[in-house]
Amino acid sequence: MEKFKKRSKKGYVPGAPIYVGDTKAQKTKITVTDYNKDSIEIHEFTNPEDCRPFKSSATNTWVNISGLLDIDSVAKIGEIFGLHPLIVEDILDTEHRPKLDIFDDYLFITFKLYSYNKETRALTEEQLSLVLGENHVVTFQEKGSDLFSSIHKRLENPQSNMRKFGADYLVHALLDITVDSYFEVLEKIGDVVEDIESRIINKPSVDTLKEIHEVKREMIRLRKSIWPLREIISGLHRRISPLIQEQTLVYLKDIYDHTIQVMDTVETYRDILSGMLDLYMSTMSNKMNDVMKILTIFATIFIPLTFITGLYGMNFNPKISPFNMPELGWYFGYPFALAIMAAVAIGMLILFKRKKWF
Amino acid sequence: MEKFKKRSKKGYVPGAPIYVGDTKAQKTKITVTDYNKDSIEIHEFTNPEDCRPFKSSATNTWVNISGLLDIDSVAKIGEIFGLHPLIVEDILDTEHRPKLDIFDDYLFITFKLYSYNKETRALTEEQLSLVLGENHVVTFQEKGSDLFSSIHKRLENPQSNMRKFGADYLVHALLDITVDSYFEVLEKIGDVVEDIESRIINKPSVDTLKEIHEVKREMIRLRKSIWPLREIISGLHRRISPLIQEQTLVYLKDIYDHTIQVMDTVETYRDILSGMLDLYMSTMSNKMNDVMKILTIFATIFIPLTFITGLYGMNFNPKISPFNMPELGWYFGYPFALAIMAAVAIGMLILFKRKKWF
Amino acid sequence: MEKFKKRSKKGYVPGAPIYVGDTKAQKTKITVTDYNKDSIEIHEFTNPEDCRPFKSSATNTWVNISGLLDIDSVAKIGEIFGLHPLIVEDILDTEHRPKLDIFDDYLFITFKLYSYNKETRALTEEQLSLVLGENHVVTFQEKGSDLFSSIHKRLENPQSNMRKFGADYLVHALLDITVDSYFEVLEKIGDVVEDIESRIINKPSVDTLKEIHEVKREMIRLRKSIWPLREIISGLHRRISPLIQEQTLVYLKDIYDHTIQVMDTVETYRDILSGMLDLYMSTMSNKMNDVMKILTIFATIFIPLTFITGLYGMNFNPKISPFNMPELGWYFGYPFALAIMAAVAIGMLILFKRKKWF
Amino acid sequence: MEKFKKRSKKGYVPGAPIYVGDTKAQKTKITVTDYNKDSIEIHEFTNPEDCRPFKSSATNTWVNISGLLDIDSVAKIGEIFGLHPLIVEDILDTEHRPKLDIFDDYLFITFKLYSYNKETRALTEEQLSLVLGENHVVTFQEKGSDLFSSIHKRLENPQSNMRKFGADYLVHALLDITVDSYFEVLEKIGDVVEDIESRIINKPSVDTLKEIHEVKREMIRLRKSIWPLREIISGLHRRISPLIQEQTLVYLKDIYDHTIQVMDTVETYRDILSGMLDLYMSTMSNKMNDVMKILTIFATIFIPLTFITGLYGMNFNPKISPFNMPELGWYFGYPFALAIMAAVAIGMLILFKRKKWF
Amino acid sequence: MEKFKKRSKKGYVPGAPIYVGDTKAQKTKITVTDYNKDSIEIHEFTNPEDCRPFKSSATNTWVNISGLLDIDSVAKIGEIFGLHPLIVEDILDTEHRPKLDIFDDYLFITFKLYSYNKETRALTEEQLSLVLGENHVVTFQEKGSDLFSSIHKRLENPQSNMRKFGADYLVHALLDITVDSYFEVLEKIGDVVEDIESRIINKPSVDTLKEIHEVKREMIRLRKSIWPLREIISGLHRRISPLIQEQTLVYLKDIYDHTIQVMDTVETYRDILSGMLDLYMSTMSNKMNDVMKILTIFATIFIPLTFITGLYGMNFNPKISPFNMPELGWYFGYPFALAIMAAVAIGMLILFKRKKWF
Repeated sequence: MEKFKKRSKKGYVPGAPIYVGDTKAQKTKITVTDYNKDSIEIHEFTNPEDCRPFKSSATNTWVNISGLLDIDSVAKIGEIFGLHPLIVEDILDTEHRPKLDIFDDYLFITFKLYSYNKETRALTEEQLSLVLGENHVVTFQEKGSDLFSSIHKRLENPQSNMRKFGADYLVHALLDITVDSYFEVLEKIGDVVEDIESRIINKPSVDTLKEIHEVKREMIRLRKSIWPLREIISGLHRRISPLIQEQTLVYLKDIYDHTIQVMDTVETYRDILSGMLDLYMSTMSNKMNDVMKILTIFATIFIPLTFITGLYGMNFNPKISPFNMPELGWYFGYPFALAIMAAVAIGMLILFKRKKWF
Repeated sequence: MEKFKKRSKKGYVPGAPIYVGDTKAQKTKITVTDYNKDSIEIHEFTNPEDCRPFKSSATNTWVNISGLLDIDSVAKIGEIFGLHPLIVEDILDTEHRPKLDIFDDYLFITFKLYSYNKETRALTEEQLSLVLGENHVVTFQEKGSDLFSSIHKRLENPQSNMRKFGADYLVHALLDITVDSYFEVLEKIGDVVEDIESRIINKPSVDTLKEIHEVKREMIRLRKSIWPLREIISGLHRRISPLIQEQTLVYLKDIYDHTIQVMDTVETYRDILSGMLDLYMSTMSNKMNDVMKILTIFATIFIPLTFITGLYGMNFNPKISPFNMPELGWYFGYPFALAIMAAVAIGMLILFKRKKWF
Repeated sequence: MEKFKKRSKKGYVPGAPIYVGDTKAQKTKITVTDYNKDSIEIHEFTNPEDCRPFKSSATNTWVNISGLLDIDSVAKIGEIFGLHPLIVEDILDTEHRPKLDIFDDYLFITFKLYSYNKETRALTEEQLSLVLGENHVVTFQEKGSDLFSSIHKRLENPQSNMRKFGADYLVHALLDITVDSYFEVLEKIGDVVEDIESRIINKPSVDTLKEIHEVKREMIRLRKSIWPLREIISGLHRRISPLIQEQTLVYLKDIYDHTIQVMDTVETYRDILSGMLDLYMSTMSNKMNDVMKILTIFATIFIPLTFITGLYGMNFNPKISPFNMPELGWYFGYPFALAIMAAVAIGMLILFKRKKWF
Repeated sequence: MEKFKKRSKKGYVPGAPIYVGDTKAQKTKITVTDYNKDSIEIHEFTNPEDCRPFKSSATNTWVNISGLLDIDSVAKIGEIFGLHPLIVEDILDTEHRPKLDIFDDYLFITFKLYSYNKETRALTEEQLSLVLGENHVVTFQEKGSDLFSSIHKRLENPQSNMRKFGADYLVHALLDITVDSYFEVLEKIGDVVEDIESRIINKPSVDTLKEIHEVKREMIRLRKSIWPLREIISGLHRRISPLIQEQTLVYLKDIYDHTIQVMDTVETYRDILSGMLDLYMSTMSNKMNDVMKILTIFATIFIPLTFITGLYGMNFNPKISPFNMPELGWYFGYPFALAIMAAVAIGMLILFKRKKWF
Repeated sequence: MEKFKKRSKKGYVPGAPIYVGDTKAQKTKITVTDYNKDSIEIHEFTNPEDCRPFKSSATNTWVNISGLLDIDSVAKIGEIFGLHPLIVEDILDTEHRPKLDIFDDYLFITFKLYSYNKETRALTEEQLSLVLGENHVVTFQEKGSDLFSSIHKRLENPQSNMRKFGADYLVHALLDITVDSYFEVLEKIGDVVEDIESRIINKPSVDTLKEIHEVKREMIRLRKSIWPLREIISGLHRRISPLIQEQTLVYLKDIYDHTIQVMDTVETYRDILSGMLDLYMSTMSNKMNDVMKILTIFATIFIPLTFITGLYGMNFNPKISPFNMPELGWYFGYPFALAIMAAVAIGMLILFKRKKWF
């Protein structure tokens, strides 16, 4: 097995297969589903060569390669299904931007699937590449997650559209699952956003700020994937490659609408998060100001009182002259001083209250 | 009745009817209004099958389904009027983005109606879906609010345009009511905005901030609905489907102008709210600063006074040497100390006043 | 006379004339100016019917309706000049967005005129609607301000282009006056902006902030009117309706250039106002910080001094032991304490000065 | 000579020549340069009539009018070269937005030249208008600055392209000088920007803020001129009026590239200035915070010390009971009190240091 | 050798070769690589004239000029390969904006290469200009860095596409290396961004702010180069000049996708950096506020304590009257005063804790 080279290595030869994904990804597994209106067969292979006969069969064939670690197998599959070397390179480049390439005899689509863990707040990304040829679909899953089981179930139902329509409908079904997974992710993130919002109002903390920042970054990530996905689906719907049949277009229009809705939701969340940041900043600043104001008012009230105590703490001798702090010699001198202090404190409190300072 | 599935459930089969709205919505009610220039008949049905004869009648027919809880009935209506399963799915998906779908024999439009309660500041949303076919209109109301009574009144007037024009004019009337409801909502929100603004200037508080934040979010929500509505009406006006008659176009242009005006108003409110946020922040900050400044100046004036009292509170013994606080032995020592304090305080007040610090 | 209904009343019949403007506006007055190269006649009517003969006269006719209170008269004029009911509705809707509607036999334009009072800083708006038909122009002024006297003067001059050119040139002249009034308004607002700016630098106050906020809002209002006006004039210049003659196009291009310049100025003012807001905030914050810093430094210098006075105010008895505040017994004890205080104060002043804290 | 009317005067007749520029501008001077491949002649005239014979000469003619005070002469020149009255008006309106007007027999271009004085930081603007006709170019300089001497030098060189190419190449040369002057201005402003930036880092002050604000405003001004200039040059390059020869296009493309680069630089400076504003605000705020923090820490350390001095300044009589401040009677009472104070002060310093508060 | 003139010198003659780059750049070196399917020859020349025979050879020729100091040689090369004088000028103008010029018999492309030093955080720029003619490519390297060695290696491999395809594939290879160098730069900057981010959370300082500011400026610089590069590659891919062969288009589409990805990354970094700036500001402000709050609370607790010590420091004589500070005469007077102080302090601590002030 070749050594993995970094995508950014200068001077690599374009079209040479280089895998840049996570090396701990699952072992490569090949599943071939061969079906038509009447029958369905599922095979699991380890040798890519076993797929070759299915390429030109009259039935619809779905070849799923899950796990891209074994780049020789991927290259072999590419060779069997007649893919351009640059396409094989793109399949292995799991950081690739979602895109649609149209060739004379096949379409190539690559895009991202997301899942979101609400506990860890981790947004996991998986690249899915897909080739639609005459009567066959080849899919390349980066991590081989258990995503396609629902499609298998629908394929097993002989009444399903999947069986009646061609390979292009299978592509539609895969894209549909993908867009639905975006809805799922956004729903979970929406819960997180609501949770953050309620905490901003009830007990804002610095961590809230970091959370807002993190969700914002996830929105940037999602947005980067959804924009090109929208273009891909729009492209499929518009540029009728003969591989896309007329009857599938209405279904593609439907996913297109959903993609727009995903986009809208992402943009709305971004707007809401920006608003929340403002709200957080103001709430924190208001809270801080309130604390400071009350403390300052408290301190301010004691300032003249302490001055008075200082005054009567001076050592001028009342015996020398009647002008020297005569209060010290009064019978009610101390109560008088206390009364003045109380009057000053109460007066200030009333004044501050009237000015609505607290 | 089927169990409701969440919209984001992965692997649902596209085109299967799933209702995602509020389950407490009203019971489904079917109202059929059959009219032409000369006569008008209104029927209330519970069985969708009763609508079937009206589909191909020569008169104009308006079928209104209010309340989408009974998804079997909705599916049945869909089947009777020949709707694509994806359309029935969209009708039941009450979170759907407003859109226009053009089919050979019918148009499908879905959009949102809003109402605003100024007391509770609640913006309520209701989805309205609408199918325009040859000589008939089918409307699906999510909550069955009493919105269409004015249209019924106009229909009962034999001189009204409604009676003279075709089914497409009815669609125009429905869209017109919708856009007018936006004006109503914006007018009420405008009052709220003005109210908030006057409070910012007179007595800003943290609640004002939350209110601005809430109105901003409602603007985001409205905007999300109005943008696609504008596209829908522009689409109706432009792409002359044979179902839209020439004479209706000028009326559609009129609603289009109103939609633009609604958009403009929403954008203006957003601009104004942003400006208000700035104004609020500055006003609060200025107020806080004023309080702090006055308190600080107050404290600052007492600092040297307290220092002086401390000075004459020191226990240096004037008896030991003539240099040890001779003032304590003066005849006018205490008045002298008080005079110095008064001079310092007044001097500082004058200084601060000159520097325009208060 | 009908009762006025609010624009946002749900369920009003489209095309029914409803006046939404200020009810205290002037009484409706009809002025008919009939002119050609050789002669000019001016009539004042109160009965709209009197205008009818002028519609199909070979001479150019300008019918000006000033004051829209009497909606029956407006509706009558609309009927005489063959206007669509929706157009009559738009004429009376004085809150309408500026727009251009093109019909087979006439053009309809509605837009806003502004005037600005520098003393009260009030931006006054007046709607002007305008119909250009074959050989006639009908104008509807909301408030009947004395705007058109200069046009009348030019019309009375037989050498003027107004007399030589057709009715479309009159439309150009009206639009030209309008755009010029924008220049006038912007010039006045420009003076206000400069005045605010000089005050920000010299003596910023909270009122300055409110003024910036107000001028910003006026810019939002102006912008909302000028954008569609630009589209209108661009439309007139581009889509050569046969009602616009070839020779007028160069004049329309000229107004178009002016509109762009108005737009540019509005955008520039917005940019400048945003910059001023930043400048204001920073200036205020700097000022506040300077005050606080000086006060804090002042307080800080007294802190150790007051501590020293406290120290020598303690009641430890020097008689008990030679370690108990021996300074109190020194001959130069008091001057020594004063010297220490002076040294501390001067030392701190030097330190703060060196650190450039004031 | 006519009285100057303000541009914004309502009701002026379009096409009437009104000069709105600086009235102290230089006297009008007419320079006629007549040249072809073989010869060159330069004339200075004061009477516009003297230019008339050059209009239809077979040689290339460049008529330069410098100083627009004498509007009669400008109007006369306009008449001689067959300019539309609106064009003459635009030439005299020195506040006009840059634009290109295409007529059948001539092109009209108006734009701004800038120069920047690094000492006074003054950005000076001069309007240049230009008419390209068959074999002649007429230029109108607002202030008659010594801008064109380099062009004269190149014209005097018989080997120069200027002599070999037609009048359109002269227009190119004038535009080229203009765009180069923008580079020069931006280079100088770039120096100012760098100077401001280095001062923000080394010793920020309120003046720095005002300087940033001023340079930002100059960027807004430049931008307002360069955007339309870009459109003009793009227009010249695209819409091949027969007055622009094929061989000149590559030169126009070259200036177009330079204009884009000027635009880029202006936008980059705006971005950089915004970043600098943020940096300034943060630096100032950090500096202020540092000062306040140190002062506050200093004050905080003295607070418990002063409390202790207050404690032992209380007048409880140790003679009454052994519980009444027995420390006052201790042999080492005073050193003990001092030791406690020192311990508190050092303890707090260590604590604050550990918390990394200074 | 001519003296270098500044690019912004007014009045320079367009098309005259002026070098504006760094004068310390390497000596000009000419490398000619002549190859076809079967053979490859590499020559190093110093005299530009030696290249002339290769221009019209049937084999593919790559002429690389590295170092642009010797402008005579560059001009000579320009003359040999028939370049327009403006193109030679653009080659020498190393500050030129990236662009693509299409001529009948050659294409001219100029763009920037970047390298980034993570230690010094220096972003180094080098201009590369490139001429694609019939069977030959001429490249002009500003600084002659060792960039092309990997291309030479691939050329030496007779199995490589480089040898099989034409000169246009060589252009593709050069652009591919360039875009890869952007990836490398962005990867390094990405490390820096992550490093800054982790420091913001752990120990933010004023330097962090300056670093964010610097990386932001580098993003502005990169963006300025990548936008036009995207246009160039899009142009090559779209406008099929006959010099670009059909088979190269798929490779150009591939680089185009990479350029979009670079753009996306730059924009994402800009968004992230803006978010980081907000985070930094809030973190700093929170930290500062926390310090201030704790210090203020600490000071506030001592204020009433110090007041009490002041109180009992007053010199009212208990002997004169029983109302004069009787506590001074109590047996447990001092412990009583201490107890009150402790109670006040503890009470305040509890209160502040309950209000969650610390």
